[in-house]
Amino acid sequence: MKLRSLLSPALAAVLAIAAGSVARADEGMWLYSAPPRDQIKKKYNFDLTDAWLDHLRLSSVRFNSGGSGSFVSGDGLVITNHHVGSDDLQKLSDEKNNYLRDGFFAKTPADEKKCVDLELNVLQSIEDVTLRVNAAIPVGATGAAGDAAVLARRKITAEIEKESLAKTGLRSDVVTLYQGGAYHLYRFKKYTDVRLVFAPEQGVAFFGGDPDNFEYPRYNLDVCFFRVYENGQPAKTANYLKWSTKGAQDGELSFVSGHPGSTRRLLTVPELEYIRDNQFPYQLALLKRGEVLLSNWGNRDAENARRAKAELFGIQNSRKARDGAIAALHDPEFFGAKVAAEAAFKKDLADRAVGQEALAAFDRIADAQKAIAKIAARQRLLEGLTAFNADSYGIARHLLRAGDERPKPNGERLREYSDARRESFEEQLFSDKPIYSDLEIVTLSDSLTFLVEQLGPGDAAVKTVLAGKSPHARAAELINTTKVREVAFRKKLYEGGAAAVAAAKDPLIEVARAVDAEARSHRKALESADETKQQAQAIIGKARFALEGAGNYPDATFTLRLSYGPVLGYEENGQKIPAHTTYAGLYERSVKQGNKGDFELPERWVKKKSALNLATPFNFVSTADIIGGNSGSPSVNRAGEFIGIIFDGNLQSLSADFGYEDKQSRALSVDSAGILEALRKIYEVPSLVNELVTGRR
Amino acid sequence: MKLRSLLSPALAAVLAIAAGSVARADEGMWLYSAPPRDQIKKKYNFDLTDAWLDHLRLSSVRFNSGGSGSFVSGDGLVITNHHVGSDDLQKLSDEKNNYLRDGFFAKTPADEKKCVDLELNVLQSIEDVTLRVNAAIPVGATGAAGDAAVLARRKITAEIEKESLAKTGLRSDVVTLYQGGAYHLYRFKKYTDVRLVFAPEQGVAFFGGDPDNFEYPRYNLDVCFFRVYENGQPAKTANYLKWSTKGAQDGELSFVSGHPGSTRRLLTVPELEYIRDNQFPYQLALLKRGEVLLSNWGNRDAENARRAKAELFGIQNSRKARDGAIAALHDPEFFGAKVAAEAAFKKDLADRAVGQEALAAFDRIADAQKAIAKIAARQRLLEGLTAFNADSYGIARHLLRAGDERPKPNGERLREYSDARRESFEEQLFSDKPIYSDLEIVTLSDSLTFLVEQLGPGDAAVKTVLAGKSPHARAAELINTTKVREVAFRKKLYEGGAAAVAAAKDPLIEVARAVDAEARSHRKALESADETKQQAQAIIGKARFALEGAGNYPDATFTLRLSYGPVLGYEENGQKIPAHTTYAGLYERSVKQGNKGDFELPERWVKKKSALNLATPFNFVSTADIIGGNSGSPSVNRAGEFIGIIFDGNLQSLSADFGYEDKQSRALSVDSAGILEALRKIYEVPSLVNELVTGRR
Repeated sequence: MKLRSLLSPALAAVLAIAAGSVARADEGMWLYSAPPRDQIKKKYNFDLTDAWLDHLRLSSVRFNSGGSGSFVSGDGLVITNHHVGSDDLQKLSDEKNNYLRDGFFAKTPADEKKCVDLELNVLQSIEDVTLRVNAAIPVGATGAAGDAAVLARRKITAEIEKESLAKTGLRSDVVTLYQGGAYHLYRFKKYTDVRLVFAPEQGVAFFGGDPDNFEYPRYNLDVCFFRVYENGQPAKTANYLKWSTKGAQDGELSFVSGHPGSTRRLLTVPELEYIRDNQFPYQLALLKRGEVLLSNWGNRDAENARRAKAELFGIQNSRKARDGAIAALHDPEFFGAKVAAEAAFKKDLADRAVGQEALAAFDRIADAQKAIAKIAARQRLLEGLTAFNADSYGIARHLLRAGDERPKPNGERLREYSDARRESFEEQLFSDKPIYSDLEIVTLSDSLTFLVEQLGPGDAAVKTVLAGKSPHARAAELINTTKVREVAFRKKLYEGGAAAVAAAKDPLIEVARAVDAEARSHRKALESADETKQQAQAIIGKARFALEGAGNYPDATFTLRLSYGPVLGYEENGQKIPAHTTYAGLYERSVKQGNKGDFELPERWVKKKSALNLATPFNFVSTADIIGGNSGSPSVNRAGEFIGIIFDGNLQSLSADFGYEDKQSRALSVDSAGILEALRKIYEVPSLVNELVTGRR
Repeated sequence: MKLRSLLSPALAAVLAIAAGSVARADEGMWLYSAPPRDQIKKKYNFDLTDAWLDHLRLSSVRFNSGGSGSFVSGDGLVITNHHVGSDDLQKLSDEKNNYLRDGFFAKTPADEKKCVDLELNVLQSIEDVTLRVNAAIPVGATGAAGDAAVLARRKITAEIEKESLAKTGLRSDVVTLYQGGAYHLYRFKKYTDVRLVFAPEQGVAFFGGDPDNFEYPRYNLDVCFFRVYENGQPAKTANYLKWSTKGAQDGELSFVSGHPGSTRRLLTVPELEYIRDNQFPYQLALLKRGEVLLSNWGNRDAENARRAKAELFGIQNSRKARDGAIAALHDPEFFGAKVAAEAAFKKDLADRAVGQEALAAFDRIADAQKAIAKIAARQRLLEGLTAFNADSYGIARHLLRAGDERPKPNGERLREYSDARRESFEEQLFSDKPIYSDLEIVTLSDSLTFLVEQLGPGDAAVKTVLAGKSPHARAAELINTTKVREVAFRKKLYEGGAAAVAAAKDPLIEVARAVDAEARSHRKALESADETKQQAQAIIGKARFALEGAGNYPDATFTLRLSYGPVLGYEENGQKIPAHTTYAGLYERSVKQGNKGDFELPERWVKKKSALNLATPFNFVSTADIIGGNSGSPSVNRAGEFIGIIFDGNLQSLSADFGYEDKQSRALSVDSAGILEALRKIYEVPSLVNELVTGRR
């Protein structure tokens, strides 16, 4: 817990107490432009040289679909997680070939399969443009003048990006760091010809399924390989990670280079309390309600189960993540440190001229949070759609609102109807993905019941929505009579605008219309409170930056970061959890669970078991500071060698959204030695093995 | 919906509108002493003769473990549900023989297995003792004088029962009917030598498991056979039901004779609103939370699943029942009829002298319900133990309270520590049933999280309970350090009393102690409000009885009742659900679900499929008015023949607790022809078949 400690003695003292010992903490998702050289030198006696950093940076790959990866040969070979590549595997699959389930291997380059729409980025340079951005923003543009600041920032950002692209030909993104304390220009080399080389079966890549998700010990071969091409040939990638055939060694220092998506470590205490006491309990109750509903409905029938599967998995994943995060917020040590850190920071601010404005900003955030709490219940139900859990309703409301919004000037519309979003909005609105009316009735019926439970049967909105019927009868009636599941109907109404929508008198659209005024009013109130918070956070961010400089790391923003920490086990409920698992453990777990369901191994793994060295390390944990988006990041050793690939965090790491902890929180990797053993003995792919070991195809 | 309509024209009018047509309703769980002769004569042109009724009554059997059954041969053969007999099957099983899972058949009487502690009752006579009971109760003993009335009632009841037993040698129970409007003396012949004759495999008795529980269409062979013995010989049972080899015919009138456990049809509207808006949503949220917790924990490991199984099934069963019941309370037709009926009854009361006291009683109930609502949140958490979901905690509190309560005079103790309950209390307290500390930590951790979510981390009770730790850490600490899981420790503390309990300083007992004063205060407030309600209900009950007489039926009380209604399908979501299912449907459902899990048929059913006539009726539905406790009740035709056995209600029937509905609500039976077909073709038990067909062994 030394999140904000570097330049603040008061804070450092508090955090030293909170964490037990500052020396234990390997916290941080560090910018490559401000790496933690001193900390690593001091604690691990290792020099982060420019050459070492440049090589790792240029070997790191961003999957724009939301993950990370790295080059592992000079011929453009990229490794990432199976679950990062799963969308692409799905898109390449057809009725005959289910590559997601069954795996894939290209024997020759000609067999490598070109992905449909995958873009990979490699970070080429970072330029600090803070002064230029700030110079363009009107002086004193805080509070009331906030809107002008937002517009000015948007304008200068677009200008810088356009100029850079023209000059360098590289993808150029201005990224906001330290909640607005700094602006950096990131330039990327883009690869858009990406081909699938190898994927294992999902049964071993995601062995243990939802029950083992976020758990440790673990046994997942969560990897797949792609190759980037240029001009129809495998790209020559001068920077790639040498594959360690030994894998990760217990206790050794490891580094993780990847793209953590987002963290909320700089939220104020009232915002965290709101999440802990209001938002998360509400979401969890809804998730658990939904999980029971869909499980129960799915258990009645195999086809039901198939229809509900994707949504059910999403719910279970979120439920586990939220349960873990709320546990951290209820941990007095973890939460107490957040409280103490904020108090110390405020004390520091109070002593300085620059701090007064930031202290006032803290108060504005607390007030805005109270305003949000007041409208939350109705806002979530009516605008957030928790009362109307059915795809049909979402479509109905889009048709209604698009009709009302599109005639307005672009800048005055609700943001999802803006010109910039139009193409992807229409693609979604006219998608013919199947919507199952039986499932829609089940979920709408349950969410209408939730509505009446929350607001009471006497509420005016409830009465309007239910129209004198029971939630179940009303849901069945609405779903069975609406026409919004017909794509042609949607097109007709979308093209015809508000008049066509009104003329259609579609019952579901009319429900959306009946609550629209109230729903919009709650949205407006929420967005206004959020804007207040954002502007206040930018002021606090600037003050923090003024106090601490770039000597600390900013919250995650899906930009390339460096994390570090030793390969290290932990203790849980009095039991020692070793850092590594082995293939022996994989088979033991499968056998113990009857080799059934999520624990059923692919046939080839059962047949070739005797060929494997079962003592080979399979998965391991380290204390590196990661979060979603880091999936697929390389774990490397001091020599910069690839020793593993990040694929998950354990349950305790679910606190990482709000802060770093290293007693039990761990990053999970697949070991490079384990991957090699599987490629050699189970998949018998000597060409791929050779490329990994020699770095050449 | 003609619950209270017989003597009240205003009410009859209201209900006729509510139900669409009075003629459709086959409502009622009728007393054998006041059977619905007129209704059945009028609607079905059938005479309920005394002989017909006596024969059915004397063929009906009460399972004191909580179910119903009937004699189906003159040699003491009794049929009931597999799920009614399951406890007995479990008790007869051992490591070698799992009769519950694998089934059982006694080839000869010598092979019939004597049950451990099963008592069956057959109703011999009913005597109205209302005048005698009321004469013993002080005049005007209402409101403040209520306690005296309660005591006087208790005394005269015990006197009547003792006298009857001495005179007749029969088990004699005075039962309270019409919420205190009438008192009847029920005399039973007791059978305590009960032996197991036949049970099928649980896989076909409970085919479809939880997913199909409360659903229809259904395919359950939910039967088993026992035989009652007297003096070591099969009892001669002159009254038994002739087995219909044809089974139930579509549309024919059927009668159900059994023991519905309890209904709450006479609750007042404010009480129902409280259940709908407060109690059920709270319970459902907890049940769904628990279901997700235990499913998820169970899915991680087969042994976890085994440990959590019983509790998980109980939760799922309750969740389904509550979801169904709350759906009824949210149905404006169903609930509106309740509201209208109460208004009409109050209007009737207002017109009469006798009604004023009852109207005042309605107000007292509403006030008491408000008082309950105020304390409910804290009462449930601290006294109702929703904050402390662990068997260990329950034991810890019993040790604490037994130490405090036992020195008090018997009449002043909390009721569970009274002398009358002492034997069974101690049996439970010293039971060595396994308690798994890993599961205890999981459930306690979750319920402590619920506590802090409900009351907030700043609450004094929360702070005391958590002692500065996170819910998870605190749960682990308490479960790992308490000694209450050692039976010897419990005995020592129980025998040593309060001093020994205090000296032990057991951490879990100390938590119970820390919240005990507050918990007790909520209990006292709740019990006081409940007593007020009970006394008020008795007054209303008397007024109702005065207005309506015995021309209507009282709420269910686990006494023998007669219900009736045709064998009749229904419509659901626009689909016609036929009254009958067949064996063909059983196999289709199993195949469609992959013959896996809850849908896996026992091997013998797969092997012998070709021997079965697949068109044989298997399960059927009727409109008879039933509820829990009716399980195992015979369905009979006009000839008094056994045509099936009640085993469940459909989802829509879950409203039966609060009122009768016949549009979709149905009682589920196994068809007598289907049972016979299985016994002949699958089980090949000619002696049992012969006994059923001839009525003689």
